[in-house]
Amino acid sequence: MNERIQKAINSVVPADKEVMTAAKERQAQLAKPPGSLGVLEELSVRVAGMTGKIHNKAEKCRIIVLCADNGVCAEGVSCTPQSVTLAQTINLTRGMTGASSLAKHFGDEIVVVDVGVMTDYNCPAVINRKIAYGTKNLYIEPAMTREEAEKAICVGLEMADKCAEDGVDAIGVGEMGIGNTTTSSAILSAFTGTPAKITAGKGGGLLDEAYIHKIEVIDGAIAKHKPDINDPIDVISKVGGLDIAAMCGVFLGAAEHRIPVVIDGFISIVAALCAARLCPNVKDYLIASHASFEPGYILAMNELGLEAPLLMKMRLGEGSGCPIMFRVLDAAYAIMNEMATFDEASIDDSYLEEIREGDHFTVKR
Amino acid sequence: MNERIQKAINSVVPADKEVMTAAKERQAQLAKPPGSLGVLEELSVRVAGMTGKIHNKAEKCRIIVLCADNGVCAEGVSCTPQSVTLAQTINLTRGMTGASSLAKHFGDEIVVVDVGVMTDYNCPAVINRKIAYGTKNLYIEPAMTREEAEKAICVGLEMADKCAEDGVDAIGVGEMGIGNTTTSSAILSAFTGTPAKITAGKGGGLLDEAYIHKIEVIDGAIAKHKPDINDPIDVISKVGGLDIAAMCGVFLGAAEHRIPVVIDGFISIVAALCAARLCPNVKDYLIASHASFEPGYILAMNELGLEAPLLMKMRLGEGSGCPIMFRVLDAAYAIMNEMATFDEASIDDSYLEEIREGDHFTVKR
Repeated sequence: MNERIQKAINSVVPADKEVMTAAKERQAQLAKPPGSLGVLEELSVRVAGMTGKIHNKAEKCRIIVLCADNGVCAEGVSCTPQSVTLAQTINLTRGMTGASSLAKHFGDEIVVVDVGVMTDYNCPAVINRKIAYGTKNLYIEPAMTREEAEKAICVGLEMADKCAEDGVDAIGVGEMGIGNTTTSSAILSAFTGTPAKITAGKGGGLLDEAYIHKIEVIDGAIAKHKPDINDPIDVISKVGGLDIAAMCGVFLGAAEHRIPVVIDGFISIVAALCAARLCPNVKDYLIASHASFEPGYILAMNELGLEAPLLMKMRLGEGSGCPIMFRVLDAAYAIMNEMATFDEASIDDSYLEEIREGDHFTVKR
Repeated sequence: MNERIQKAINSVVPADKEVMTAAKERQAQLAKPPGSLGVLEELSVRVAGMTGKIHNKAEKCRIIVLCADNGVCAEGVSCTPQSVTLAQTINLTRGMTGASSLAKHFGDEIVVVDVGVMTDYNCPAVINRKIAYGTKNLYIEPAMTREEAEKAICVGLEMADKCAEDGVDAIGVGEMGIGNTTTSSAILSAFTGTPAKITAGKGGGLLDEAYIHKIEVIDGAIAKHKPDINDPIDVISKVGGLDIAAMCGVFLGAAEHRIPVVIDGFISIVAALCAARLCPNVKDYLIASHASFEPGYILAMNELGLEAPLLMKMRLGEGSGCPIMFRVLDAAYAIMNEMATFDEASIDDSYLEEIREGDHFTVKR
């Protein structure tokens, strides 16, 4: 195993149960029926366990978008032209795409990283960490070498390191890579032993014939390359993509640095699952955002023991669900940091002076 | 019918279908697979129909919290002491409660209106529109007179008028009134002919015995007072509350002024249903936020044809779901206003100069 990756795996500590207990106690003191703020309470307690602090903030949030092409597009598994990977990689830096216009609007940072776009181009705003000009066609041969997969994971770790250095409060993990619902379903099928007809959907709008071939491609690739499910890097390299490998690295690195990390949609959760297979403690740092309608999403959620609080019917990718989820985190922290306790909320005599008058109470200063 | 209410009912125009069509066309031009931003797209189109404008903003959002006591508390239908209505009415103005700390954090306005708290008190920050010192016990007699219900609705209309005058972009409707899950279930049971065992839950945490009595109270009140379901004000006055009546007025008034209005939880949606029964066009202006776990909630949602995009497990009331939903609206508008069209997002020659080189494209300036 690559040293940097092994170091990260060894560094991830489980959530701090003591701080979580203290956070729960604080929630119990707030002036509300216990549990009545539901997910906001749960998130505030979980994040306390991640950061080791009861009081957290979501002022500096960063979406990291990992971009790469997937050779499996040669099989016609996507109805979107492969050139869109490049166009949207550039547009992400211009505040023009769904995720980047939301990030810009809410003041979130967006970092766009090329780990495998199949083209050279001139856009200094994209961080160039290109490992290959796209992956190979996984229906025919392994998508990449083990070394390439490790390099991509290390790019993700590097991006997480930068977040720690810059004092980022929460990370969101997005992607741009035409064909990556196929690679995501393939990884999920491999890990869970589930046939592709369960894990794969029609992506951006595949016709029936292409969908049937997508399933053949996934089941066929797994049968051919026999990825070792006890070796997540083997799985990623044989049937995954450079985008997913790098995303996996961001999830792992976020956990290493104890930074809460928000999952976007289907591809993002599969990358999170890869990180959790490499290092089970990563699960403690994962925050789900919106429920994807891709059929494999629920399967991955169950594997990770997560629930998604947003039902947005979104399927754009790019990390587009993250800016909304950052606001939910902000709300969760506001409750923990700013809401009054029962003691503070008691109404003192400046308001109340109870004088029974007729059949109601009259309260006067 | 009260003249002011009748005027409002007559004034509500249906959503502007032409503007909605134009908004849909704009969404179709944005650089994303059609429909891939799901709820954000749907909301942007629905709000265009409400305001008559394709481009909207959520800069000035206001939560209106209607506060009143419910005489039915005498039946032991709530496990929270009735004095909490007053305490939290005051605390709402101090930024100390769940809803008000969220509103304060996000820069939303909160307006607290007393339409029937059973106590006099000294808190100038509460808008005093007290109509009665709480309602009567609806298990024994009608909760209020028809005139009182109409007065309360008019208070809601007044608050919506003020929103229009102040240029409010979106309204949220909350409440504070111990016992108001009972009145809400009673109204819902009356309107839909559904027994209380379907519409009523355990509210803030009722024990089984009290829950059984809550059901008896609701079914009994409806059997006794026989509210006329074709006359929503008759229903509200016999088995409702002053809080719900005034909330109904806010929903009606928001629609009159073509201002998007956000439903909070169960009590809020029942008030919205009352407004929609008074004036079906009101439905076009309603925006659901988080799904309440109160069993009647889904029934009310189906009546109104709405879906809730947030699954927050919240059950605090006060309008606490609204600040999060305002952010979702903000996101929906950001997509419509700021995302690039396919034309704008096309990558021009400054980025791309395709030169085939080996087996990949090389793009150089």
